[in-house]
Amino acid sequence: MRSSTANLDDILTALADPTRRAILEVLSRGDARVTDVAGPFPISLNSVSKHIRLLERAGLVRRHVRGREHVLSFNAQPLDRAAEWIESHRALWKGRLRALDALLKQEDRERRRMKKGSEATHDRIR
Amino acid sequence: MRSSTANLDDILTALADPTRRAILEVLSRGDARVTDVAGPFPISLNSVSKHIRLLERAGLVRRHVRGREHVLSFNAQPLDRAAEWIESHRALWKGRLRALDALLKQEDRERRRMKKGSEATHDRIR
Repeated sequence: MRSSTANLDDILTALADPTRRAILEVLSRGDARVTDVAGPFPISLNSVSKHIRLLERAGLVRRHVRGREHVLSFNAQPLDRAAEWIESHRALWKGRLRALDALLKQEDRERRRMKKGSEATHDRIR
Repeated sequence: MRSSTANLDDILTALADPTRRAILEVLSRGDARVTDVAGPFPISLNSVSKHIRLLERAGLVRRHVRGREHVLSFNAQPLDRAAEWIESHRALWKGRLRALDALLKQEDRERRRMKKGSEATHDRIR
């Protein structure tokens, strides 16, 4: 499946597993054959293959067949979609925090003004 | 669980589901009670509660008990960890693409130089 058709669910699910992130770490250093990728992991080649298929479905890994070898490469493009969602929600949150901060400061100013006013009245009464 | 102890697996798993992302959309507009959050979704309150628990485990949602009401708020801090991982791997990939591009350009220059050299030899022979 091409990265352009991979959806955010597939992309984030692919990233949500430590073995799959480790496979991407390996491939981010350079293209590698399936067997070379599987080498360092203490799990079966079959399990690694399943993880690779999930990464391919998310468009994060591409498979090139060279003769009898299957060479895998990392494709970071789908990360753009995930980064976009995350960034927009960090921005929304920061905006809300700023608005909340401004509101608290305004309340604080009003409270001090009212206190000052009541003290002045108190002084007059005294 | 506090956001600082939530791990990247929990954070990305929490984000990898459209219902959970929609719950975060609702909460990014303002705090809301569990029942109000559940309202718009065509699934049971029990299912929504399970999604909320997963978001809490990831530190993305905080629950405040006010009397008999459970009020939920969005906390974007765990998004920093996800953004960090994604950004570093986008950067790695872009670095590799630039290196590959530089290599191809160098090969191209060398090929042209060799061609020019062989043409000059050919001219001399003629």
